[in-house]
Amino acid sequence: MPRLNPLVADLAPPPIPSVQAWARAYDESFGPTVDLSQAVPGYPPHPDLIALLMAAAASPSTAAYGPIEGDRALREALAADQSALYGAAIAADNVHITAGCNQAFICAALTVAEPGSRVLLSNPFYFNHETSLRMFGIGIGLVDCPAEGGFLPSLEALEAAITPDVRAFAIVSPNNPTGAVYPPALLADLLELCRRRGIWLILDETYRDFLPAEARRPHDLFLRAGWGDGLISLYSFSKSFCVPGYRLGAVTASPAVVAEIAKIMDNLQICAPRVGQIAVAEALPKLGAWRETNRAEITLRATALKAAIAEVDGWEIGAVGAYFAFVRHPFAGLTSARVAEQLARRAGVVTVPGSYFGPGQEDYLRFAFANATAATIGLLPARLRRLGTELDG
Amino acid sequence: MPRLNPLVADLAPPPIPSVQAWARAYDESFGPTVDLSQAVPGYPPHPDLIALLMAAAASPSTAAYGPIEGDRALREALAADQSALYGAAIAADNVHITAGCNQAFICAALTVAEPGSRVLLSNPFYFNHETSLRMFGIGIGLVDCPAEGGFLPSLEALEAAITPDVRAFAIVSPNNPTGAVYPPALLADLLELCRRRGIWLILDETYRDFLPAEARRPHDLFLRAGWGDGLISLYSFSKSFCVPGYRLGAVTASPAVVAEIAKIMDNLQICAPRVGQIAVAEALPKLGAWRETNRAEITLRATALKAAIAEVDGWEIGAVGAYFAFVRHPFAGLTSARVAEQLARRAGVVTVPGSYFGPGQEDYLRFAFANATAATIGLLPARLRRLGTELDG
Repeated sequence: MPRLNPLVADLAPPPIPSVQAWARAYDESFGPTVDLSQAVPGYPPHPDLIALLMAAAASPSTAAYGPIEGDRALREALAADQSALYGAAIAADNVHITAGCNQAFICAALTVAEPGSRVLLSNPFYFNHETSLRMFGIGIGLVDCPAEGGFLPSLEALEAAITPDVRAFAIVSPNNPTGAVYPPALLADLLELCRRRGIWLILDETYRDFLPAEARRPHDLFLRAGWGDGLISLYSFSKSFCVPGYRLGAVTASPAVVAEIAKIMDNLQICAPRVGQIAVAEALPKLGAWRETNRAEITLRATALKAAIAEVDGWEIGAVGAYFAFVRHPFAGLTSARVAEQLARRAGVVTVPGSYFGPGQEDYLRFAFANATAATIGLLPARLRRLGTELDG
Repeated sequence: MPRLNPLVADLAPPPIPSVQAWARAYDESFGPTVDLSQAVPGYPPHPDLIALLMAAAASPSTAAYGPIEGDRALREALAADQSALYGAAIAADNVHITAGCNQAFICAALTVAEPGSRVLLSNPFYFNHETSLRMFGIGIGLVDCPAEGGFLPSLEALEAAITPDVRAFAIVSPNNPTGAVYPPALLADLLELCRRRGIWLILDETYRDFLPAEARRPHDLFLRAGWGDGLISLYSFSKSFCVPGYRLGAVTASPAVVAEIAKIMDNLQICAPRVGQIAVAEALPKLGAWRETNRAEITLRATALKAAIAEVDGWEIGAVGAYFAFVRHPFAGLTSARVAEQLARRAGVVTVPGSYFGPGQEDYLRFAFANATAATIGLLPARLRRLGTELDG
């Protein structure tokens, strides 16, 4: 076989299927598998959105290419939604539609960083951010987000990590994997620091619609003069509208950045798929109440998870928010992969090992609890206890 | 503004919208604009496929993530279709579904080439192949495909272009932009040469379903022992099933290459959009007769184009096949961009300048004639003549 690209060959296989494979050995002796591995909504799309998707599919024009930047109607709908949420004046020209938020990240990263330059990630990081950069030959620097600091980066740590080859700092808030929510003041300070040092702040806001109702406005960055000369914000329709299979995300940035992304998207796939764009553009202004119900439901699930973990000796919530909790396991001597594997095989609970999110995360597992109802989450104490007696005995 | 990635910043804006913009100045004095710029099917999807798309959209499970490699049913359906067409034993495990064929190319390129290595393209090349490689910092070498050789590469030219940093030779057959069809024997020789020299042959077969009926089997490469240790074949559902808006393509390669592509696709967008996968998997085995009708229709259009060009003094078909013709214009002193712009502005015929496809192509324009009915193609002689009197007078 001719040579393979070592940057890709050296990557591990995709993590989610790998951890799901562990559960195949589970014998269901404690009931069905509880899959908390992937961030997917645990409820279906709204029936009105399904009807709109069907209506869009009925039209032959949906089968045609659309504009590279995205259908104008969806760019306008998202701009209006964001303008209302952030209290800012975001225009359709600030929006580029992508096929999901992984692709939004790739567009942002390629806009600012060439091979050999570097992008800073928080540690822990979202694993696809790290593997995407590695695949492109873009270097990675890590900014530590220690448990004792609430899994948030300090300005000092960021400042120290910015070397001349650094092009951007990429973060996720509410965070994947930890669930930590970056306070608005911290985000403002991070953007200011990035701009002062001449680097971009890439802010993945995939989970922003699942902040608690009283903290629904994630930040005021879009109110700052010249925000586009520093901020690139990423969004996913997958979680908020329960349509990951339609692959729909977005970048919000300056028109200059949108123009760069259009070149990248043209290469990647011409345009995002149309059917989801057409349906969501129409659904977005109408599903406000439903989205609020989901926000409340996910908040309930977070509360249920906190209660469930508190019941079990030795297990502890490191951080929790929106879709995820970063949970400290009690097996200090074991790797997180070993614990996650045993938890899946013996107790039928699928989580992702902390080590998949960066160095020094062996004491943690990521629980993507948004997948599960509060009732299912209520099954966790008995499952975790079962593991306890097997592993430490 | 912080620094942009120079590899992207240096790219020209996407070409198709740029050339379409020229036609906005056309005053319709010769009738409506004839857009021959983009390779899109000039007829709608089959009604049964529309019905299947609606049925797929009706199911909430369509909105969920699917397997990274693609829905098993579509991988199996394409493998069966390819096995029949090529007379070979292609399995579902040889197939990775992508969001269109541009993305299939990106997956293939990243599988084999890292930044600083090189991929060889034919000259002329498909422009997105060139810009995709540039965007990733992958070097490009050109293998000349001169008009006098039928716009095909010679083995000598390929051999001479293979330096130690070359990882692959990427070609398109039937060709974009020229329409030239690579003879099966040439493809066999190219693969053999690539394998002997330890590089990959990336073969984009987007237009293979539009070969004339009597030459429907494009090659016998899949019959050769160990083909997977050299060949990566790319396919698009967009043209054959008239669904570019659903973004659906595929890579056919060894399981080892498919495993590499799964890592890349997981980063790019987790999985290809589901709704098209589900519908096309069911439609594929049923639409054979309809696809044959389209094959015949496109062949008719090619005949109509040849007749139309032959009517006009000074204009000449360089090559023609499947979706495209590479047409030599009579304005030897002018750039192809100038001719294409004037043709769009003054005569309302939108084509793509030869220079967009590589150095030394100034005498040519690409006509994507599959978009237009034979009747519309019949309008071309008067339009081209009109330009003639304006530009050379």
